[in-house]
Amino acid sequence: MSNKETLAAFFREEFPQSDFVIESVGDRRARLKQVIDQRHLRPGGTVSGPVLMGVADAALYAAILGEMGLVALAVTTQLNVNFLRKPSAEKNIIADCHLIKVGKTLVVGEVFLYSEGDSEPVAHAVGTYAIPPRQE
Amino acid sequence: MSNKETLAAFFREEFPQSDFVIESVGDRRARLKQVIDQRHLRPGGTVSGPVLMGVADAALYAAILGEMGLVALAVTTQLNVNFLRKPSAEKNIIADCHLIKVGKTLVVGEVFLYSEGDSEPVAHAVGTYAIPPRQE
Amino acid sequence: MSNKETLAAFFREEFPQSDFVIESVGDRRARLKQVIDQRHLRPGGTVSGPVLMGVADAALYAAILGEMGLVALAVTTQLNVNFLRKPSAEKNIIADCHLIKVGKTLVVGEVFLYSEGDSEPVAHAVGTYAIPPRQE
Amino acid sequence: MSNKETLAAFFREEFPQSDFVIESVGDRRARLKQVIDQRHLRPGGTVSGPVLMGVADAALYAAILGEMGLVALAVTTQLNVNFLRKPSAEKNIIADCHLIKVGKTLVVGEVFLYSEGDSEPVAHAVGTYAIPPRQE
Repeated sequence: MSNKETLAAFFREEFPQSDFVIESVGDRRARLKQVIDQRHLRPGGTVSGPVLMGVADAALYAAILGEMGLVALAVTTQLNVNFLRKPSAEKNIIADCHLIKVGKTLVVGEVFLYSEGDSEPVAHAVGTYAIPPRQE
Repeated sequence: MSNKETLAAFFREEFPQSDFVIESVGDRRARLKQVIDQRHLRPGGTVSGPVLMGVADAALYAAILGEMGLVALAVTTQLNVNFLRKPSAEKNIIADCHLIKVGKTLVVGEVFLYSEGDSEPVAHAVGTYAIPPRQE
Repeated sequence: MSNKETLAAFFREEFPQSDFVIESVGDRRARLKQVIDQRHLRPGGTVSGPVLMGVADAALYAAILGEMGLVALAVTTQLNVNFLRKPSAEKNIIADCHLIKVGKTLVVGEVFLYSEGDSEPVAHAVGTYAIPPRQE
Repeated sequence: MSNKETLAAFFREEFPQSDFVIESVGDRRARLKQVIDQRHLRPGGTVSGPVLMGVADAALYAAILGEMGLVALAVTTQLNVNFLRKPSAEKNIIADCHLIKVGKTLVVGEVFLYSEGDSEPVAHAVGTYAIPPRQE
């Protein structure tokens, strides 16, 4: 079972461009914080859609790695995102992921995305990862 | 604000072919029970996908009516369903809906569907309803 | 490779309650016609959403069977439907399915749904089927 | 009606960080090219999912602006993406968008994404934009 530090090291090594913080992981859940700076914004003073989608995808991946170990080859097969409210440009994004099915070949999870400190979500995502067969 | 009895009467009147039971409604939530009989099954001894989708859609509608009053003209614009586990042919289907955005023109909600008595969901849906402008 | 008659016989045998007509199948495509009668309608004089979702799902299944042979155990894992226009209660529903990925374990396809004779779609669906491993 | 040059100027002005090329726009369609460089890649030698999602979203936006004029306040409300094949790290990404409903308040379109020169899509997206009411 991966813990938070193992996962953080994995992301630093494998995805050096990623700049989120893993706040917690385990029990089919993961919580990430994406620090928002100028590069993540779009006109109108808000966080861009692709940034939100990227954080949702990363939160799913972190929850899966936390649950299944470092199955680096897991790949997203599908992601559905609803954009609910305009995120604040002044606040970081928090992603709360919860896996709703952990199968041998497919894992499905949902993610609520928040502007840090707010109680209403700015977006909601549901995604599927395909898990490669284990070579034994 | 609609209550359970008002809603049940509304569905009996407007959707006489519907045969679900409203177990609770209010606070941006609704819980329905679809009694499963032979007509809802498909080969392999399981509940058919369209039945699950129909119950998910009805749970969203019930939650919206419970929240906004009897806006009969609300229409589904989008529904995304993940089928997670094979539902039992022997058990009723329970739908738990939670609205995650209640806007003036769009309402978004998610629904977990269960075989009655089981703790792992058989399906998960996210849907959007468009609310017609109020004539005043 | 299944042809139209083989598929029609398969659906009659396995899904006796289904009442659509397979108009064509092959080349990663399938076209179904759902004859619409009173049972498929909802208040407001239109075809109900679950009927549209059921026809979309069946069109995906027919296209997959036409492409891969009678893999009866293929199951829908995900279906996303956009409802675009109010279908006419007076017209049959035509479903045009096109598979966009035929993988060994996952097949993805899209379906345009029309009121028969109309050029603008009433709904659009994208769905995924999981194909069980072949026992050899 | 916007043409390709007007749109390109709009994106340069409003989204200075965007680096795609509008290859064509009009007739409810838009075709974009995203030049792929090191920043768009992820481990395993492929284009990252968020890049694909960003290009799909931009292609929808370009098609909408091409159809409706420069309604800068149109916002994505929902995006569903299926990842179909591993895109080549050596090839640019082409996005082909086709609007399937152009309503007064909601526009729905689909996007096929290709590695340039390949005939099979690497991803497929369906998205919805909400159009703000015109102030008159």
